[in-house]
Amino acid sequence: MASPWDELTLAFSRISMFPFFDIAHYLVSVMALKRQPGAVAVAWKNPVSSWFTAMLHCFGGGILSCILLAEPPLKFLADHTNILLASSIWYIIFFCPHDLVSQGYSFLPVQLLAAGMKEVTRTWKIVGGVTHANSYYKNGWIVMIAIGWARGAGGSVITNFEQLVKGGWKPQADEWLKMSYPAKVTLLGSVIFTFQHTEHLAISRHHLVFFYTVFLVVTKIVMMITETATVSSAPFEDAVSRILFGWQQQISPHEKKNEIKSPFRSTDSSTSKSIAGNSDKVKKKDTKKTE
Amino acid sequence: MASPWDELTLAFSRISMFPFFDIAHYLVSVMALKRQPGAVAVAWKNPVSSWFTAMLHCFGGGILSCILLAEPPLKFLADHTNILLASSIWYIIFFCPHDLVSQGYSFLPVQLLAAGMKEVTRTWKIVGGVTHANSYYKNGWIVMIAIGWARGAGGSVITNFEQLVKGGWKPQADEWLKMSYPAKVTLLGSVIFTFQHTEHLAISRHHLVFFYTVFLVVTKIVMMITETATVSSAPFEDAVSRILFGWQQQISPHEKKNEIKSPFRSTDSSTSKSIAGNSDKVKKKDTKKTE
Amino acid sequence: MASPWDELTLAFSRISMFPFFDIAHYLVSVMALKRQPGAVAVAWKNPVSSWFTAMLHCFGGGILSCILLAEPPLKFLADHTNILLASSIWYIIFFCPHDLVSQGYSFLPVQLLAAGMKEVTRTWKIVGGVTHANSYYKNGWIVMIAIGWARGAGGSVITNFEQLVKGGWKPQADEWLKMSYPAKVTLLGSVIFTFQHTEHLAISRHHLVFFYTVFLVVTKIVMMITETATVSSAPFEDAVSRILFGWQQQISPHEKKNEIKSPFRSTDSSTSKSIAGNSDKVKKKDTKKTE
Repeated sequence: MASPWDELTLAFSRISMFPFFDIAHYLVSVMALKRQPGAVAVAWKNPVSSWFTAMLHCFGGGILSCILLAEPPLKFLADHTNILLASSIWYIIFFCPHDLVSQGYSFLPVQLLAAGMKEVTRTWKIVGGVTHANSYYKNGWIVMIAIGWARGAGGSVITNFEQLVKGGWKPQADEWLKMSYPAKVTLLGSVIFTFQHTEHLAISRHHLVFFYTVFLVVTKIVMMITETATVSSAPFEDAVSRILFGWQQQISPHEKKNEIKSPFRSTDSSTSKSIAGNSDKVKKKDTKKTE
Repeated sequence: MASPWDELTLAFSRISMFPFFDIAHYLVSVMALKRQPGAVAVAWKNPVSSWFTAMLHCFGGGILSCILLAEPPLKFLADHTNILLASSIWYIIFFCPHDLVSQGYSFLPVQLLAAGMKEVTRTWKIVGGVTHANSYYKNGWIVMIAIGWARGAGGSVITNFEQLVKGGWKPQADEWLKMSYPAKVTLLGSVIFTFQHTEHLAISRHHLVFFYTVFLVVTKIVMMITETATVSSAPFEDAVSRILFGWQQQISPHEKKNEIKSPFRSTDSSTSKSIAGNSDKVKKKDTKKTE
Repeated sequence: MASPWDELTLAFSRISMFPFFDIAHYLVSVMALKRQPGAVAVAWKNPVSSWFTAMLHCFGGGILSCILLAEPPLKFLADHTNILLASSIWYIIFFCPHDLVSQGYSFLPVQLLAAGMKEVTRTWKIVGGVTHANSYYKNGWIVMIAIGWARGAGGSVITNFEQLVKGGWKPQADEWLKMSYPAKVTLLGSVIFTFQHTEHLAISRHHLVFFYTVFLVVTKIVMMITETATVSSAPFEDAVSRILFGWQQQISPHEKKNEIKSPFRSTDSSTSKSIAGNSDKVKKKDTKKTE
């Protein structure tokens, strides 16, 4: 006899991402594209190129996951409904008379709602990636973590690569010294869901989905309100590093300078435990380091 | 009872590309490679490298199509007959005593014949790509358009990428603002053949093959004789853009400056219809934008 | 009734690479990574990135072979035992107190032993690649040569590409004018083993494995002792080139200047025969040109 709590989390885990959460994800992704210098000019001059880049922004994580599992990277083009939805959003954002959509998007409540809904889709992508990888390599937990990470945060790998090929992005060696916050938090989620899937973590899937999603949405919204780039987990990373690598002095001055301290410290104990889990279990593919 | 017209187009659509049309395609591709600065020096110093680059020029479209459908990119190496043919042509072009082949190729009639025959192979590649993609994603028309485009005009993506990796090519961001003429015309063909395949276009395959091939060959030969880089379709693109995007003033000054006007205007109504088709249906992968 | 010679070579060909030869391979690969400028700093700041790069160095050839055959590039992550072994070696090398491992590795006998054992793994990889490709394309000898080459010497392609994407490596066009010694010798081995597999070479597999491995190990150790970058095969390459390409004058001044002459000239007749075989049969993928 399921408790009301069980029913709530179960119902939450069964929400379909289509269409509203997907719309929010496409909206945030294409608006991010629009803010890049020159993007509007490209849309006017070569709509095909602009549309293609927008599709990479919307479906990049899935494309990277396909490449890593030797599935056709074009598979996302066979899903006509989502392609039509994403294309419509691209068209409306770039070609709406008087730029209405961008003006509407400039209001903070709209951005908060869209960003929160996009974070919900992140959880769904991680879970989908972990499950999908398990069908390829049963109990291949490293592969499951990698694919969950790729789907949840791999989009920027694909879009950065497209920029590299187009000549609009010069990779800087020092970018790779630090993982972005979305990359870290997606790696964390991928590790947790993998161990839940292999039954090393005694928690049911729908509970974990609920907690992780709430964590993602709350931290994202707080970061947007306080205008910080990252929730500083430096104290926890220092502690773990000291245990594993014995180098607290070298790293903490660097970390303190590079990260923006926010009044909101992540006190979620699962973060510190999972960063420990990160450090000694996973250490996954660097290509997913940037979101 | 088939009319003589039917029999002509049917017989035409059944011509095998091997060996003469394939020879023409390899000849044009390897001569294009030879004219690149430094190519002859590489052939003397490192024949393996030169041979490999020549193979990419000859089979690049098929390689890109394989990558997009997660088939082994090395598949073309299993076709020993065509590899041997392409390798022989590479060897003859680069190492013929007194450079006889290059001298023979410098005569315009020879170039016209070879280029015309190469355009015939383009049609066959587009049709092959569309059919092949349909076997993967039945009625996945976006995928069919993409694969037809990749096979017909994707070779330059592969060769540009090889140059990028070798350090001999720096991508310029503004190159991607305009699609090359071969890319546009291949996209057009891919769209047409996809809709014929999905029975949205009421014309039989062999008639379409005949008409499209004649269009390709005639425009190519006229362009080579009049020494223009592209058949200007600017008026039609302007009209379509005005309908879809409402920006006629911004674009036409740019288009008039950038395209070389030729006395030959494409009056083929299928061009304007298909550009409309391009704009509102397809807008395919930008990576195929250059030939 | 097998002779003692037969039994020796048969027993040799059945040696398992795990764990000692694999350990030697990982040791040499990760030490090569550690000597790159900035590698230690990356290990301190972003262990995930450093671990990932180390995995690419250890498993790069297999990853390239998977990409070329459209198998999941992540397949190597499913082999938990070897991943754990390679990760442990990475951890010990980068984070050992007082850098004990690097100090131990700085002794020449240790380097010679590790390098010799790594060359043994090269033979095993080539043979594995040739056999694996044959399962995909029966008698597709060009594919078999390519995959054998990829597995034996393709790691540097993957690691160079990772560096390119990270911004730490700018490809120089002239690097591609010469194949590195490991690339040449792996191509040679790949050709020999392919023709043995297709029964064009009348020698049993285990004899060939023994001879080729002894050749690799001896030349590698001699090169390390005499501190030369390559065993000069210029005289033989000149002879073959003169036959095939008729350009002895152009090339030999260049070759004499660029290669470091060593007192040890390779007199193995199979080298000259196989370079001839190289030139007129194979001319394989340039991407495997650097080790």
